[in-house]
This record gives sequence, C-alpha cells and structure tokens, in this order.
Amino acid sequence: MLEATVARRAAHLARPAHADGGSAISFDSGYAFPGTLPDLSAAAERALGAYRREALQYGPRFGLPDMREWIATLMCDDGANVVPGDVLVTNGAKHGIELFCRLFTEEGDTIVVSAPTYFTAIPIFRSFGLGFVEVAQDGEGIEVDTLRQQLHERERQGLEPPKFIYNVTDFHNPSGITMSRRRREALVALATERQIPVLEDSPYRKLRFEGQQEPSLKSLDSAGVVFALGTVSKIMAPGLRIGWVAGPRPLIARMGQLKSDGGTCPLTQRVVLEFSKGGGLVPHLRRVTQTYADNRDRMVAAVRRELPDVTLAIPQGGYYLWLHFPAGTDTDALAERAHDAGVSVIGGSAFFAGESVCLLRDQRRYMRLAFSHATHVEIDEGVRRLAAAYGSSRT
Amino acid sequence: MLEATVARRAAHLARPAHADGGSAISFDSGYAFPGTLPDLSAAAERALGAYRREALQYGPRFGLPDMREWIATLMCDDGANVVPGDVLVTNGAKHGIELFCRLFTEEGDTIVVSAPTYFTAIPIFRSFGLGFVEVAQDGEGIEVDTLRQQLHERERQGLEPPKFIYNVTDFHNPSGITMSRRRREALVALATERQIPVLEDSPYRKLRFEGQQEPSLKSLDSAGVVFALGTVSKIMAPGLRIGWVAGPRPLIARMGQLKSDGGTCPLTQRVVLEFSKGGGLVPHLRRVTQTYADNRDRMVAAVRRELPDVTLAIPQGGYYLWLHFPAGTDTDALAERAHDAGVSVIGGSAFFAGESVCLLRDQRRYMRLAFSHATHVEIDEGVRRLAAAYGSSRT
Repeated sequence: MLEATVARRAAHLARPAHADGGSAISFDSGYAFPGTLPDLSAAAERALGAYRREALQYGPRFGLPDMREWIATLMCDDGANVVPGDVLVTNGAKHGIELFCRLFTEEGDTIVVSAPTYFTAIPIFRSFGLGFVEVAQDGEGIEVDTLRQQLHERERQGLEPPKFIYNVTDFHNPSGITMSRRRREALVALATERQIPVLEDSPYRKLRFEGQQEPSLKSLDSAGVVFALGTVSKIMAPGLRIGWVAGPRPLIARMGQLKSDGGTCPLTQRVVLEFSKGGGLVPHLRRVTQTYADNRDRMVAAVRRELPDVTLAIPQGGYYLWLHFPAGTDTDALAERAHDAGVSVIGGSAFFAGESVCLLRDQRRYMRLAFSHATHVEIDEGVRRLAAAYGSSRT
Repeated sequence: MLEATVARRAAHLARPAHADGGSAISFDSGYAFPGTLPDLSAAAERALGAYRREALQYGPRFGLPDMREWIATLMCDDGANVVPGDVLVTNGAKHGIELFCRLFTEEGDTIVVSAPTYFTAIPIFRSFGLGFVEVAQDGEGIEVDTLRQQLHERERQGLEPPKFIYNVTDFHNPSGITMSRRRREALVALATERQIPVLEDSPYRKLRFEGQQEPSLKSLDSAGVVFALGTVSKIMAPGLRIGWVAGPRPLIARMGQLKSDGGTCPLTQRVVLEFSKGGGLVPHLRRVTQTYADNRDRMVAAVRRELPDVTLAIPQGGYYLWLHFPAGTDTDALAERAHDAGVSVIGGSAFFAGESVCLLRDQRRYMRLAFSHATHVEIDEGVRRLAAAYGSSRT
C-alpha cells in the first residue's frame, strides 16, 4: 500500500536489475578475470593486525589520510596537480558519480554525455531526474565542436546550460575510443570558457596494451573545472569498493558534506595501501594488462572469423569491444537470442541515454562485448554462439 | 568559480565536519571501545582464500545471498517475520537512511523525528531538503499521542502528511530511553492507520546490560509499514561498513534500484559471515556488553560524584548518557569550555532538528556523553575535567 507514497525519482527507474549471466558465457559485465584476482591475504593480515584500531573504527569522512595521499601521488605521477586535500575517497566510483550529481544538479537539470555512454551511469543520472545533451563520438572521442554548437543552440533557445559534462576518456566504455590530445584540450578549453564542470571517468587508463598514453583531462586543467573519478576496481579488484573524486578543494569539501555514510570502509582502504606498499600493485597491473591484451586479441580474432559482417575499432586497452552490425540488425533482439544460445551480451540501446532522436536510429546496430571476464575457450565458444544467433536471424 | 553552480541541497549543509577528538579524552563520538575490536584475521583469511572469487568481484546489488539470509535469520530470531528477499544490504546504516530518504521523499517534504534525535541523521535529512515534525519523548519513548495530535493539526491546516517517521527504539541516541511495549504498539498502530512508513533504527538493541527486551517495532508490524535499519557497527565493528534495511519486498526492490554503488563490498560481507559462522559473534557480544555495562557504571558514578547538579536517567544499554543540567546552563558553551579543558562532549542543540520553538528553550540544558570509547581512567578524568569546566562557569 505504501507504494503510493514513493518519491517521483523512484519512478524514473523501471529497468530491471541486470542479470549476472548464470551458467551462460558472460561477455556482458565488466567483471575482472577471475584468474587474476590478487592475493590480498597478507595485506589484510596487516590491516587487521597492526592497523586494527584504524581499520575497524569509523574512518574519516574524506578517507584515510594515507589513502588520500596515495591517490594524490598516483595522480601526480600521471601529470595532474593534486594534493591529498583535493581527494574524497568514495565507496567505489559510482558513489562518486552519485555525490557529483548531488553536488551539482537539481531535478530537471541537464547534463552532457557521449553517445554511447557508460550504461550503468545512465540510471544513476536518471535517478536524479536529469535530462541529457547527447554528443556523438568519432575516432578522437566526444565531438567537442558538436558540443559547442549544442551549447550555443541551447543558449539561443534560452535553455539553462548543462550542469556538467560526463565523459570516459580512455578506452571508452563501451566504444573503446581513447580521446586524442587535441580533443582533450578542446574539451577542457570549452568547459573552462563556459564554466561547466567536467567529470572525467577513467577506470581503464592503466590497462593500456599498446600505443601512447594521452594526458588526462585533469592534467590539462588549470582553471579548476575538471574532477577526476577514480577506482581500484580495474587495477586491483572490484570487490574492494574503493573509489575517489579529485577536484578543487572547496568543492570537494562540499561534496564531503553530502557524504554521510560513516566514512568509506577503512579496512579495505588499508588493504589497498598495504597491497600497494608491499609491492603487489606493479606486478599485478602487468599481469592483468597482459591477460586483457591476450583476451582482446583472442576476441578480435574470433569476431573476425565468426562475424565477418561486423566492423569494429580495436581498442588499445580496457575491457570492451564495440561491434557495429550491418544496417537492419536489431542488437537488442540479437542479445536476447544470444542469451538463449548461451552467451550474455548487451545490445546497443542500453548505452544511449536515449533522448536524441537522430541517434536513436543507429543505436541498435551496436553491441558491447566484454573480453575481461571469459577464458580463451569461452571467448571462442561465446563468439561462435553469438554468430549462430546472428546467422539464424539472417536466414 | 564553479561554486556558484552548486545545487541548493549543498547549501543546506553548513555544519563543519565533526572533529575526531585529537588528544582530548573523547566522550563525543560513538566509537567502539578499542580494546574490544574483534580479531577478524581468520575470517578475512577465509574470505580472501576460499571465497576470493566472490569477495573480490562486484557483489550483487542487494547483498550476498548468504548475507541477506544471515540478516533475515537474525531478525527472525528477534521475533520479526523477515525473509532474505526483504533485505537490502547497505554500506552502513547511514547509507540505509539515505536510500530511505531517496525512496520516500522529495525536497520540501516533512518527516517525523523525536526531540532529541540521532544527530548524525539530521544533516542527512537536511541534505534532502526535508523539514521536521519534532515529537518529544518521555520515559516510555516518543510521545505517540502528541504525534497523533500533530498529524491531526497538520491535516486541519491542509498540510501534507509527513513522509516517514524516524525513530531510535532501543537505548535511544542520545537520550538512552527504550520505548515501552505499549508505546511501540501505539506507534505501529498510528503508522498503520495513517499509512506512514516507519524507519526503526536500533543499532544498540543487542547491547542490553539488564532488564527485559521489548519487541521490535518490526515484529509488531503486520501491515508492512515498518522498515528496520540494521548495522554490524555496534555488534562487531564500525569499520566494516555493513548495514541493511529490511521491509516489504516490493519497496525494498525499489530501494535497490536507487542503490547504484556497484554492490556493497562483498569482502567485508564475507568477513562478517565467516566471523559469525566461526562462532566469534556470541562471545564477542558478551564481551562488549560487559565492557559497556562497566563503562556506564563507571561514568554514572563519576557524574554523580563530580556533577551533583546534573540529573540523568540510567540507560539499560547502548553507548550514551544524556545529562540534564540546571536551568540557565548553556551546554553548547560548556562543551567548548570542556574541549579547552581536554574532554570532548557534545552540547544539546546538536541533537534537535531545531524547528520547534517550544523545544528550543530547553535543548541547551542537555549534553550527551558517550561511555563507549574511553577507559575507566579516562572516564574519571574526563568527567572531572567536565565538572571543572562547568564549575568555572558557575563562579
């Protein structure tokens, strides 16, 4: 009966929770490769022994001082100018997205996302009642000139400017695209000119298989408009639930006031620190990068062999392939048939915030495959099953 | 510069983060007694060994199935009718409060709280733009007849009914009061009649030093209006950040849709389960209950000895004493002087949502002392310092 009393924002959410894949081969979720999950036992033993009084009490609201310093160092080593006071530790990066929405938006506001965009972020944005300005990507990333025109057009129409720009800069999820340097510079320049905060989400940045790393948006920002979202999920393990937001300190301080969760788990923060301090992180990163590079190669080969109709750009890192099917394909329907055939994939429409009609036509020709989670045997067999499901729809 | 773009809700929050106490004796925060923090090493070793693939991947949105079952069993053993599907695991209980606000309220809505109420919940409620109907407590807990009149009065004035009732039922924080059975029955009856959800927050329930346990609100609810908020913070350790909300499944399912954090940490969930399964919980609970009972006795004796002007009701469990000073005392000012004298305490006004003028007059005669965190020597010395600060203000 109480259901009548539920807030409007809960009604924004109609999509059922995403299935975990069951016994099917899973290309759907950004799970870590099980064989590379690190051995954190020694780190946990130290956290629960020498650091017990820190690890088991309430932690400081902004994160353990050592953790904030570790994150700031990580970011400085990556070219950004960040001090520990600029960092808010969160319960995973998605918690950072949530706090960012709470800090900068009101219900009914608009934000900028790429088309396609990170599909798990979409329901978070919707749960805050946000609308979308969708901007297409090309091979250099989000089209900043297009965004400039869209902002200009909104201004002309007397519409409020978007409250922030959300973008995945490296090995984009799902498209795999890494922004070029000049595109990054253009985005930061536009955001600075318009004073629109940018949330740079780059969980895969350290999982580069080849090619040259581009500077982060954060490192290009001298005006204090870029906030960097980070996580240990892809460089250590998703189950730790440690993320962060780094940005101008006065705004991070305000964000912290909205973080009323009793402090992010000090135990898992200490485990991260001890694993890293103990020298575990560097060899682990080398191992996962090699694993994912091999998985990517295996999956690209399988797709080329089994799905010759499909085009794809080969990502230089990350977790995902973004397949483009011939005109007339409905990847949402194909994903259902693939699921029946024993492989879980995600059809294109899930990755579009879905308000730009011009983008809608094409979205069901795309499909995301995660190569992170499956073994080589599963990759071969899963792509074969997907191809069979696709083939049966063409005959 | 971006500060101009911050959402209204961030402006609701002006209160600085609470200090951790530094080298002062700390009676201010609900920290666990350091000497009773459990040894979780063996549980963590199993979680990171045998359960590694579960503990280090993304966890299910609603919590580990074993965790939901463990919580349901805990609640059934306490007389409530709860199945695992009724349970949403959260990142600590405060995260549960946040999700409850997101599910049931819109900015500008009103909720019911006791006066005084849990002071950390107040800024959470404010961050959602909520207003308050404050209801006084007597020795039996929140005054349900008064609440009934207030609801009636609001109705008469054409005001919207409050969106939910928040209450700490056992060893109330800060007042220490445990609701009587008949008062509990009256509250559930009123909430059922008015169809107003109740959020029952009872973190201290298992820390009973003496006397008879009363049935939980949840166990008295047959109409599906009560949601139970739980946590392992007081029965195991705050640093684990594992809490839950249990309520009618359709609403818990909706609440889960708003929980977009990548799943509560499966590692710490598994640590909780392994510690409990390994037989650690029962002796640990016995040990902490004895420790806090001794601490309470020590602090009550110290207050009677050093502060004869002060009256207090002796709580039968929990973490706190709620002191009532003579007329004319300003406990907010006294707390500042006490801090200078080397003991951290919290003055009365922090515990009142602060909108009922009739309640405002008296609130600065109260002060909360936590007896949870300090040693006996610190309790004696801290109360002595407080008495000195109080004495110096009277001369």
